[in-house]
Amino acid sequence: MTKRIDFQVDPSAYRHWRVEYNGDVADLIMDVDEKGGLFDGYELKLNSYDLGVDIELADIVQRMRFEHPEVKVVVMKSGKDKVFCAGANIRMLGGAAHAHKVNFCKFTNETRNTFEAAMEDSDQMYLSAVRGACAGGGYELALACNYIMLTDDGSSSVALPEVPLLAVLPGTGGLTRVTDKRKVRRDLADVFCTLEEGIRGRKAKDWGLVDEVVSNSKFDETVAARAKEFAEKSGPSKAEKGISLNPLQREIDASGNLNYSSLEVEIDRDNNLGTFHISGPKEEAPKDVAALVEMGDQSWMLRLARELDDAILHMRLNELEVGTWIFKTQGDPEAVAAHEAMLLANKDNWLANEILKYWKRVLKRVDVTSRSLVAMVEPGSCFAGFLAELLFSVDRSYMAEGEFEGDNRPIATITLTDGNFGPFPMGNDLTRLETRFIGNPDQVGKLENVKGEALEAEDADELGLVTFAFDDIDWEDEVRIFLEERANFSPDAMTGMEANLRFAGPETMETRIFGRLTAWQNWIFQRPNAVGETGALQRYGSGIRGEYDMRRV
Amino acid sequence: MTKRIDFQVDPSAYRHWRVEYNGDVADLIMDVDEKGGLFDGYELKLNSYDLGVDIELADIVQRMRFEHPEVKVVVMKSGKDKVFCAGANIRMLGGAAHAHKVNFCKFTNETRNTFEAAMEDSDQMYLSAVRGACAGGGYELALACNYIMLTDDGSSSVALPEVPLLAVLPGTGGLTRVTDKRKVRRDLADVFCTLEEGIRGRKAKDWGLVDEVVSNSKFDETVAARAKEFAEKSGPSKAEKGISLNPLQREIDASGNLNYSSLEVEIDRDNNLGTFHISGPKEEAPKDVAALVEMGDQSWMLRLARELDDAILHMRLNELEVGTWIFKTQGDPEAVAAHEAMLLANKDNWLANEILKYWKRVLKRVDVTSRSLVAMVEPGSCFAGFLAELLFSVDRSYMAEGEFEGDNRPIATITLTDGNFGPFPMGNDLTRLETRFIGNPDQVGKLENVKGEALEAEDADELGLVTFAFDDIDWEDEVRIFLEERANFSPDAMTGMEANLRFAGPETMETRIFGRLTAWQNWIFQRPNAVGETGALQRYGSGIRGEYDMRRV
Repeated sequence: MTKRIDFQVDPSAYRHWRVEYNGDVADLIMDVDEKGGLFDGYELKLNSYDLGVDIELADIVQRMRFEHPEVKVVVMKSGKDKVFCAGANIRMLGGAAHAHKVNFCKFTNETRNTFEAAMEDSDQMYLSAVRGACAGGGYELALACNYIMLTDDGSSSVALPEVPLLAVLPGTGGLTRVTDKRKVRRDLADVFCTLEEGIRGRKAKDWGLVDEVVSNSKFDETVAARAKEFAEKSGPSKAEKGISLNPLQREIDASGNLNYSSLEVEIDRDNNLGTFHISGPKEEAPKDVAALVEMGDQSWMLRLARELDDAILHMRLNELEVGTWIFKTQGDPEAVAAHEAMLLANKDNWLANEILKYWKRVLKRVDVTSRSLVAMVEPGSCFAGFLAELLFSVDRSYMAEGEFEGDNRPIATITLTDGNFGPFPMGNDLTRLETRFIGNPDQVGKLENVKGEALEAEDADELGLVTFAFDDIDWEDEVRIFLEERANFSPDAMTGMEANLRFAGPETMETRIFGRLTAWQNWIFQRPNAVGETGALQRYGSGIRGEYDMRRV
Repeated sequence: MTKRIDFQVDPSAYRHWRVEYNGDVADLIMDVDEKGGLFDGYELKLNSYDLGVDIELADIVQRMRFEHPEVKVVVMKSGKDKVFCAGANIRMLGGAAHAHKVNFCKFTNETRNTFEAAMEDSDQMYLSAVRGACAGGGYELALACNYIMLTDDGSSSVALPEVPLLAVLPGTGGLTRVTDKRKVRRDLADVFCTLEEGIRGRKAKDWGLVDEVVSNSKFDETVAARAKEFAEKSGPSKAEKGISLNPLQREIDASGNLNYSSLEVEIDRDNNLGTFHISGPKEEAPKDVAALVEMGDQSWMLRLARELDDAILHMRLNELEVGTWIFKTQGDPEAVAAHEAMLLANKDNWLANEILKYWKRVLKRVDVTSRSLVAMVEPGSCFAGFLAELLFSVDRSYMAEGEFEGDNRPIATITLTDGNFGPFPMGNDLTRLETRFIGNPDQVGKLENVKGEALEAEDADELGLVTFAFDDIDWEDEVRIFLEERANFSPDAMTGMEANLRFAGPETMETRIFGRLTAWQNWIFQRPNAVGETGALQRYGSGIRGEYDMRRV
C-alpha cells in the first residue's frame, strides 16, 4: 500500500455515495462499488468501506456545509437491499500495514466527529435510517448521527461484532459512543458488544442503541416525516444558496514538496522534517458579507483552511517518515487579524460561521496529528489570532528575539486576538490557552489584556506564550540541536508521549475516542491474537476461527 | 519468569526498605538490595526496583495505616548516597514477558495511588525528600507523594528519561501526574520528558516539577522541620496504637485452588474459569469500636478484604490463562449488612475508617482487573451492601429466579444498603450505581428507596441491578453457554473492550492513568522500536542505541 492517497475528490467521480437534495432535506445514500477499493486485493462487498469510501463521505459532509447550507437534515441510508453497512472492509484491514490501519481509523474518526458536530456547528442534523444489517463500522456511522431509526422487519439489526468475530475493538468511536453518548448500561453494553448477531427491533430501542423503531411497512414514510419535522423545528434556512468548493491549486514536485496558493510544505528527507510555510493574506479582508460570499472559496481564510487541511492529510498518510512538522508563517500580522476579525464580527452570517468552524476542525486535526509538532516564530512572521493557535497546538515553540543580523524582515512578534479566547476550542472543550495554562488559569485573564498588541520575544516569553526565545547568536544552534535530537527518538514513544501531554484538563467523548479507545485499538492491532498468522483478522473469511494465546495481559 | 509471585511479605523479611518511626513522623528509606531481585538475570543497582521491591512498599503503606495510625507524615528518602531512585529496573523490563510488564505496571500504579490517597483517606501525608538522581519510576514515586522537596546541590535532579533513553513512556502515572496533578505547562512538559539528564534546582520549582528546593547544607533540617510542620497542622492523632496485620491463613493446593478463612478460589482449567466463593460472616458484628479494635485483624470485613486483595493479586500475576472470574457469595445478607452498618455508623473511629477505605481500594482493584468479571447471584447468596458492589463492578451478572429444584437454600436476593450510595466510589469518583445508571440518573434515587429490602430476581431485574435473571429451567444452560463463549474470545479484545466499557462518566487522574496512559504504554511495549531485537529496551546497557523504524503510526 504505497500508492499516494489523494484526499481531494470531485463529486462527479464519487463511486460509493449518492446525494439527493430536496430543499431542506438531503438523502445521503451509501451504495459502495465493490470494485472501487482504493487498493487491490479486496472487494468492498455488503457496503463495507475502505479509506476511499470515507474520503468521499468526508467530502460530502464538507460540501453539504459550504455548497448546500439550505439543507437542515441529512438522511443517511443504504442503497443496497439487505444491508445498511457492514463496516470497515476486513480483508483491507487484514492486509494493511499497522500505520495504515491506525491512520485509516484516525481519519474515519475525524469524519464521524465532523458530521456529529454538524448540528451544533452548522445547524445540519444527521439522521440514520437503518434497514438491513448495520454492523461494526456500519453501526459506528449510525452512532455518530444525531438520531437513529431502525426498521422492525424481523431481520434488520444493529451490531458491534468486532470483538467476537475479529478480535479487535469497535474502534471508530463505537465503544465510547455506546457508553458516553447513548449511555447504554455497562453490562448491557458488554452483552451487546459480544453478540455477533446484534440486536433487533424493540430491544434495540429499550437498550438505548437506537432512538426509534418503526414497523417496516411504515419505515420510509416515517423516516421522511421525521426528517421533515426536524427540518421544520430548526427554523428558516440561513442561506438559500451555497458557494462552490472548486479543486485546490496544488503542485507536488518530484521531491514531494507541496505547493498551494498560501501554503508550501518543504520536506527535508535527511532530517525527516516537514516545514509548513504559511503565507499571510495578500489582499485586504472582505469589506462585508456580500463581498465574502462573492469571493466564494477564494477568500484567504477559507482557501488556507482547505490547503492546510489537505496538506495535513497528505503528510499524515503519504509521508510516514517525516516525523517532525514545523509551522512557520510569513506576512502581516495585522492583515491576518483583520481577516479573522471580519469573520468574527459577522459570525451570524452562514459563510463566516462555516469558515470559522472549519478552522476549528483544521486546528483539531493538528492537535491529534501523531507527529512532533513545532512552531518557529521568525522575523517577518504573522502568528496572530487563529494562526497563533498553532503556537498553542504544537508540542513546543521557538521564537526569534530581536533583530537578526542581515535579516531586514520585521522583528518577530505574536499577536493575540479574540480568536484565541473562544472560537476555536480543542477536543477537550477548552481553548488552547486554557489548556496551556491549566495550572495557572489567571494567566488567561492577563493575556486578554494584551489582545491586539504585537508582542516581541521578551514579552511573549515572559507571558508563557512560547517555549524558548533565542537571539540570533544562539538561534541556529539551538534549533538545529533540537531537531537533530528529536529525529533520533523512537517515533512510537513520541506518539505515546504526545498523546498524553497534549490534552490536560477535562475529558470529552472526543478526547476519549482519540486518547483511550484509539490507544487500546492500536495495542490490539499489534497483538498476534488479531494480526498474527493465526489471528482473527488474518483468518477472517477463511472459514477457520482465529487461534488465541489465552494468557491475559 | 514463571515462579509463583507471593504478595504476602513479613516486615522482618524486608530487603529493600527500612522504616524509622518517630512519633507522628516516619522515615521511609529506600535502600534496595542489589542482589535481591525477584527473578534472576539482573541486579537492582542504583535503587532501581522490580515487583519484589514494590510488594514491600505496598506492604509498608498498608501497615502504616493499620499498624501505625499515629503517623501523620511519611518522609520517603533514599538510603544510598548519590541516587534517590533510578526507577524500574531496565534489564528486568527488557527480559520480562509482555504480560509481566503490564501486570507489574498495574500493581506499581495501584501502590502509587494508594499512598497518594493516604492523606485524604487516612490523614497520612507522604513527603519525598529527593537527594541524588531521581529518574523515571523514581520521579514517579515522588510525583505520587503529596509534597516533593529537592536538594539544590548542583547535581540532584528529577527526570523522566524513558522516552529519549528507552523508547517507552513514563507509564507509572508519570506523564499524567506531570500534566494533571502538577499541571506543568504542556510545552515545558515536552521539554522535560525528552531531557535525559532531567532538571535541577530552582528551575525544577519554577516549572512546577517539585514543591520546594532547599540548599544542600540545610536540606535535612528543612525536611525534618517541614515534616514536623505538616504533622502539627494535621491535628491530634486519632489513635495512639494500631493493630497487627498477622500473616494470612492461606492454602494453595496442587491444582492451584486457594483456600482462605472466608474465601475460596476454585480454578477450572478446562474452561479457564476462576470462581471466587466468598463466605458471609459466621460471627455477629462487633458491638462497638472497642470490640472492633480488640478483634484486630480478625474482624470479618478486614479479614475478607485482605484475603480478597491477596487472591486478586495472586490470580492476576500467577494465573494468566484464567480469563474469566466469577464472584459468588454464600451467607446471611442481613449479617453482611450488619457488619457494614457497624463500620459506617462508626466511621469516625480510625479503624472503622481504615477498613472501609481498604474496601474502597479492594473494589477498585476489581474494577481495573483485566479479566472478564461475572457475578452469579445464586440461592443462599449474600450480595448485600459492599458485597453487592461486586455486582456493579463486574462486566455482567446472572441471578437465579425463584426456587431451584432440590436446592433448599434461601431464594437468591440482593440487598442495597448505605454502602451502595457513597462510601466506595470508583476511580471516576462516582459510585458504581451512578456509573451503571449514567444514562438514567433518577434510577439511583429510586434505588435509595428500596434500601434494606431483600430484592428477589424479578424486582432486581426490573430495577436494573442484574444483567439477566433465569429460573432453574434455563439457568444451567444459559450460564454454561455464556462461559463457553467467553472462553473462546480473544483475551486481548476482551481487555480492550472491558477497559472502555467499565468507566463511563467523568475522568479523573486515576482513570486516565489506567485508561489512557496504560493503553499507550502497552502499545509501545509491543512495538519493535522498544522490544524488538534492535529496540531500545533490549539494547539498554549494551552501549548501543536502539535502532528505530522511523515511520510514524
